[in-house]
Amino acid sequence: MVKEKETPAHYKIAKIARDLEKAGYPVIHLELGDPEIEVNHDIAYELYRAAMMGYTHYGDPRGVEPLREKLSEHLNNKLKVNVTKENISVTIGSKSGVYMSFRALLRHDDKVLLISPVWGLYQVMLDDLGIKYYNLKTNMENKWTPTMEDLEKYKNCNIKAIVVNNPNNPTSVVWDKETVEMITDFARKIDAYIIADEVYIDYSRKPFYSFLQTDYEKVIAVYSFSKSYAMTGFRIGYTVASTELATEISRLLQLYITNVPEFIQLAALKALDLPWVVEENRRILWSRTDYLTKSLKELGFKFIEPEGAFYVFTKVPGGWSDGVSFCMDLLQKCYVSIAPGTGFGGYEDYIRFSATASLEKIKIAIERIKKLIEGS
Amino acid sequence: MVKEKETPAHYKIAKIARDLEKAGYPVIHLELGDPEIEVNHDIAYELYRAAMMGYTHYGDPRGVEPLREKLSEHLNNKLKVNVTKENISVTIGSKSGVYMSFRALLRHDDKVLLISPVWGLYQVMLDDLGIKYYNLKTNMENKWTPTMEDLEKYKNCNIKAIVVNNPNNPTSVVWDKETVEMITDFARKIDAYIIADEVYIDYSRKPFYSFLQTDYEKVIAVYSFSKSYAMTGFRIGYTVASTELATEISRLLQLYITNVPEFIQLAALKALDLPWVVEENRRILWSRTDYLTKSLKELGFKFIEPEGAFYVFTKVPGGWSDGVSFCMDLLQKCYVSIAPGTGFGGYEDYIRFSATASLEKIKIAIERIKKLIEGS
Repeated sequence: MVKEKETPAHYKIAKIARDLEKAGYPVIHLELGDPEIEVNHDIAYELYRAAMMGYTHYGDPRGVEPLREKLSEHLNNKLKVNVTKENISVTIGSKSGVYMSFRALLRHDDKVLLISPVWGLYQVMLDDLGIKYYNLKTNMENKWTPTMEDLEKYKNCNIKAIVVNNPNNPTSVVWDKETVEMITDFARKIDAYIIADEVYIDYSRKPFYSFLQTDYEKVIAVYSFSKSYAMTGFRIGYTVASTELATEISRLLQLYITNVPEFIQLAALKALDLPWVVEENRRILWSRTDYLTKSLKELGFKFIEPEGAFYVFTKVPGGWSDGVSFCMDLLQKCYVSIAPGTGFGGYEDYIRFSATASLEKIKIAIERIKKLIEGS
Repeated sequence: MVKEKETPAHYKIAKIARDLEKAGYPVIHLELGDPEIEVNHDIAYELYRAAMMGYTHYGDPRGVEPLREKLSEHLNNKLKVNVTKENISVTIGSKSGVYMSFRALLRHDDKVLLISPVWGLYQVMLDDLGIKYYNLKTNMENKWTPTMEDLEKYKNCNIKAIVVNNPNNPTSVVWDKETVEMITDFARKIDAYIIADEVYIDYSRKPFYSFLQTDYEKVIAVYSFSKSYAMTGFRIGYTVASTELATEISRLLQLYITNVPEFIQLAALKALDLPWVVEENRRILWSRTDYLTKSLKELGFKFIEPEGAFYVFTKVPGGWSDGVSFCMDLLQKCYVSIAPGTGFGGYEDYIRFSATASLEKIKIAIERIKKLIEGS
C-alpha cells in the first residue's frame, strides 16, 4: 500500500523553474503538458458571442444538450461505440473528471489499483480523499504494459476500481487491443470499475482501442479539450459512463461547481466543428516530439519511442544517481526544466521530457542537455 | 445531529418547473438566485480579448496576480481591512469557495455549527463529505439573529467551524456589528473557524459589517462575482483567509481544477473597473425586491423585510399545511416556482420568493399568487 503525502516532485521543480525565471534566467520548460500553441480564433470568439447571446447564467450540471449530443456523435464516429448524451458529463478539464469519478465510485478506505507509470496527481488525489491504492509498476522492458500475471497478484485485494491512462503519460505508450481487453477481463472477474483517462486519444500514432470499446458497463472514460485543441486554460473535459454513474457525477458537479460556464461549453462545441485544428495541433506536436525523440536518442538516452502523447520517458543517463538529481542539475546549471520519474508512481531512475515547447526552444534545450551530459 | 441525504426540495421543485416548462406551460421562476440581467458588454468582450492575448493556458492555482491584487484593494477600500493578494484564492464561484474551505479545514467526522436558515447546499456538501453538523435554528421572532444563549448551547460540542451566511439567503436579513462580533467572540472562545459566506455583500441596504472586520485570524470569507455583476454563469468567486489557509485552499484548487480559466479572471478584473455595473444591478434588483415585498405584504404574508439580498422568506399562508404543499400548489396550479423552507435548514412552514426575475414577470406572478390565495 503506497502512501505519498507530498506534492509530486515535478511540481516542486516547476516552482524552482518559475523562481529562476522570475530572477531573469532563460528557463526552457519541458516539464509541463501544456502545448505552446495558441488557441484557434473562432474558438476564442465563440466565448464572446455566447456570452453576448446570454449564456452567462446557471445551467444544467451535466452540460448543455447540444454539446453532449455532439460529443456522443463524435465518439460514436471515432470509436464505433454507442454512446448517448445521457452518458456524458461535462467537467472542469479531465482533472475534475477524474476527481468526480473517484468521488462517484469510491468511499473512504476503498482500494484502487493504479497501473503505473501514471499521471502523478492521481496518487495525490487519492491520498487526499483517504482512498488506498496499490501501485502495479510496469517496466520499460515489458514496453510499459502489464501482463495477466501482474494483474492476478491483486485479485484478492478487494479492488474497487482500476485506474488506467492510455495513451500513457509519461511513457507515451499506447496499449494494443489485447492489453485493453485483458485489463477489462480482469476487472470483470474481480467486479471492479475502470477509470480510463484517455485524454491523449488524438495523439495516438497507431490504431487506438478505447476502454469504451470493450462494452464493459463499469468503465468511466475521461476526455478533455485541453490537449487536442490547445485549450488547456479553458478547463473543459468530459466523462463517459453508464447513465446511472453519469447521474451521480452530475449530482456532484451541481454540488461543487454548478456547471462548466456555458460560453466555454459553446466554445468547445465550436471546436468540434473544426477538426483541422486537431490535425494541425497533432502535426505540430508530432514534429516537436520527433525532433526531441531523435535528439535524445543521439545523446544515448534509452526509452520506448512515443506512440501517443508527446512525452519521452527515459532512463536517467549514466553519471547521475537518480532522476531528481539529473533534473536539478539540468535546471540549475542549464535552465532546462523537466520532470523526474518519482512523481509518476515511483520511477526514481526515470525522467520525463515534454515536447510541448516550441521547436526552437526544444532545439536550444537539446544543446544545453548535450553540454551537461558531455561535461559530466 | 442532523442528517439529510436528499437533494434539497427546492432543487426537486426546480426540476418539476423545468418539466412543466418543457411541456409548454408559462412557468415564472421565483425559486433561483440567478438575476435575470444580462452581463455587461465590456466584461463579455474581455473573455475574447484575453483568450486572443494568450490567456488560454494553465495558470497559478491561486489566481492571476493582478486580479488578486485588485481584489485586495477592493476589499481594503470597502471594508477598511488589511488584506493582501496572499490572502486571496480565486475559486469556481462561491460554491467551490465554500467547498474548498470545508476541505481545507475539516476532516471526516469533524463537527460544524450551521446558523440557519442557511443556503441548502451547505448541508448536502457536508453530508457528502461525511462531516457532521449541528443546526442552530434562529427564528423570525428574533429577526433571524442568534443570541449568545443560543450559541452557548454548543460550547461543549467540539465545533471545528461555524458556518454563517450574511447577508442571509434565504431571509435577506443583515446582522449588525454586535451580532457579528458576538459570533466571533464565541468562535474565539471555543477556538473554532468561521466560514463566512458574504456573497450578497453588495445588496446590503444598511451598513454592512463583515466577519473580516473582526480581525479574527480564523475567518474564511467567501465572495463571488455572480450576484454583484450578474456573472452567475462565469463561475468565479474568491476566498479571503490567512496566508496559511490560502496556501492550503490553493493546493486543493491545483489538485482538483488547476485554476479558474484566466480569461474569466481577466473578465472579472474588468468588472472591478466598472463599479456602475454593481450600482445598476443593485438598483434593478432592489426595485424588483421592493415590488415583491410590497405585494406580498398586501397579500397578508408575514416576514422580515429584506435588508440585503433579494429574497423574501415568509411564513406559508393559512390554508396550507406546509411550505412544500404551498410550493407544489403554486407551481402546478399557477406555474409560479418558489422554494420551500425545508431546504434552508428545516423550516417546514416557510417559503422563499426570489426577486431575480424581471419586474414584468414578478407582476404576473403576484397576480397568480393572489388568485391562488383568494381561491383557497
